[in-house]
Amino acid sequence: MDRLHELKSPKDIIKQMMLKDEFSKWLGIQVDAIDHGRCSLSCTLRKEMLNGFSIAHGGIAYSIADTTLAFAANSYGYQSFSIETSISHLQKVKEGDRLIAESEEIHRGKKTGVYHVNVKNQHDELVAIFKGTVYISKITW
Amino acid sequence: MDRLHELKSPKDIIKQMMLKDEFSKWLGIQVDAIDHGRCSLSCTLRKEMLNGFSIAHGGIAYSIADTTLAFAANSYGYQSFSIETSISHLQKVKEGDRLIAESEEIHRGKKTGVYHVNVKNQHDELVAIFKGTVYISKITW
Amino acid sequence: MDRLHELKSPKDIIKQMMLKDEFSKWLGIQVDAIDHGRCSLSCTLRKEMLNGFSIAHGGIAYSIADTTLAFAANSYGYQSFSIETSISHLQKVKEGDRLIAESEEIHRGKKTGVYHVNVKNQHDELVAIFKGTVYISKITW
Amino acid sequence: MDRLHELKSPKDIIKQMMLKDEFSKWLGIQVDAIDHGRCSLSCTLRKEMLNGFSIAHGGIAYSIADTTLAFAANSYGYQSFSIETSISHLQKVKEGDRLIAESEEIHRGKKTGVYHVNVKNQHDELVAIFKGTVYISKITW
Repeated sequence: MDRLHELKSPKDIIKQMMLKDEFSKWLGIQVDAIDHGRCSLSCTLRKEMLNGFSIAHGGIAYSIADTTLAFAANSYGYQSFSIETSISHLQKVKEGDRLIAESEEIHRGKKTGVYHVNVKNQHDELVAIFKGTVYISKITW
Repeated sequence: MDRLHELKSPKDIIKQMMLKDEFSKWLGIQVDAIDHGRCSLSCTLRKEMLNGFSIAHGGIAYSIADTTLAFAANSYGYQSFSIETSISHLQKVKEGDRLIAESEEIHRGKKTGVYHVNVKNQHDELVAIFKGTVYISKITW
Repeated sequence: MDRLHELKSPKDIIKQMMLKDEFSKWLGIQVDAIDHGRCSLSCTLRKEMLNGFSIAHGGIAYSIADTTLAFAANSYGYQSFSIETSISHLQKVKEGDRLIAESEEIHRGKKTGVYHVNVKNQHDELVAIFKGTVYISKITW
Repeated sequence: MDRLHELKSPKDIIKQMMLKDEFSKWLGIQVDAIDHGRCSLSCTLRKEMLNGFSIAHGGIAYSIADTTLAFAANSYGYQSFSIETSISHLQKVKEGDRLIAESEEIHRGKKTGVYHVNVKNQHDELVAIFKGTVYISKITW
C-alpha cells in the first residue's frame, strides 16, 4: 500500500480537529471515546452557558452533539460536512450538570451519512436527542 | 384592566431574559429589533467560535437562531419553551463575519407555535435556515 | 374507580382509529403489535405506491411511520396530535417489498411526546428513520 | 452544442417523471407550474385520504410536498434524491379541501439543495410547511 494514500486513524484525525476547534475547547469538551463512525464526548455546564431561564442554553446541547457528529463522521479519514441537523430538548440542564454525548451511526453511504447523538446528564437521563446528516467528500484528512 | 394581569411589553420581557442569558452575552448578541412574535439579533464571529475546519462551529449559528426563537416566542408575555428545532447550514462563516438572525412567525396556536429564523452574513447571504417549534405555557413573564 | 373515567385499552383505541382510517386501509396496513406507547405496523408495496423513479414514493414510508406514531402516541387513552415530524430515506423500496414500521418512545411528558419510528424491509434492512413530536391533549378516546 | 449533452426542459422532465409516478396519479396531482428550481402542484382531498380522526392523514400533505420537492429539484436536468425531509402540520384538512403546494428554492449547491414547500388550502391558509434536502447526482434525465 502506498504510504501517501494511507488514511489517518480516528484518534489522529480528532486530535487534529480538536487542536483548531476553539469553540469545543471553550465548551470544555473531553473526548471519552473515538473510533470509526463513533464518538463519545462530555463537558460540564458552566454559568456562562445558561440562558434567560437560568438553565443550559439550547445551543450548548446542540454544540456538543454537533461536535460529536463531526468527529464520528470524519473519523474514517474523509472530510465530511453537516448538511442538516435537528435536536429535541427533552429535559432541563442545570449549572454543574455533566453532559455526555454519544453517537450512533444509522447509515453510511458513499456520499451521505446519518447519525443519531444522544445527550444524557450525569444521572444517565436523556436530555436531548440529535440527528445529523452529513455530506462525505473525497478530501482526506 | 387589572394591573396585576397586565402582560409585560416585548422589550421588557427580552430585557429581563437577556439579563440572565449568560451564553447570549458571551456570544455578544445585540438586539436589533423586537416586537410581538418577531425578533432580530446579530453578533460577530470571534476566534473562540471556530471549529476544527477554522470556520464557525455549527453551534454558533444554531445558538443565535435559538435565542431569536426564544425571544420571538416569549415576546407575547407567556413563557414558551422550544420542543423541536432543526437547522441547515448553507454557507461557511468566517472569523470577523457578522451574523444577522431574523425570525418569521409561521404559526401561533393556543399551545404551540412554529417559527423560521433566517441567519445571514454581512453581505446579506443566507448562511443557515432554522425552524423551531415551541410549547406555549400559561405562565406569564 | 369510576367506570366513566376508565381509559380504553390500546387495542380498543387502535381498533377505533383504524376503523375510520381510510388511508391506512388503502395502504394495506396490518397491526402487528400495539401496547402503551408502542406500535408495530406493516404493509406491502404495490404498483400504485411507486414514484417517477419506479421505486416507493417517499410518502409511503412517511405514511406508515406517521400512522405508527399516531397509534403509539394515542395508545394511552388521550388524543394526541402530531406537531412536527421528519424522515430520512436511507434505501430504495421496490414493488413487492414489505415495509415494517416499529416505534420507540423516546420521551413522554405531560404535554408533549417524542417517538422514533424505524422502517425496515423484509430483509431487516433499515429503509427510513422517522422522528415525531406530538401534543398530548386531555381529550380521552 | 452537442445534442447528446443537451439537458431536457423542466416540462419534459416532469412529464417523464409524472408518467411513471403512480402514487402522484392516485393522489390526483395536477401540475400548476413548473420551471427551473420551482414547482406548484395541487390535489383534492378524497375520502380514502382520511385518517382515524376523519381529517386528512399526515401522509397526504407530506406526499404532495415530497412530489413538489422532487419536481423542483429534478427540473434542472440532473437526477436528484431526497435525503432528509421534515413537515409541520399546522391546520386540519378536510374531505373536499384543495391542497396547493408551492416550492421555494432556499439553496442550490453543486452536490446538495434545500427547498421549502408551503402547503395551503383553497382559502389560502397554510396547512403545512415542509423542508427537503436533496442530493444532486450527475445523472441526466
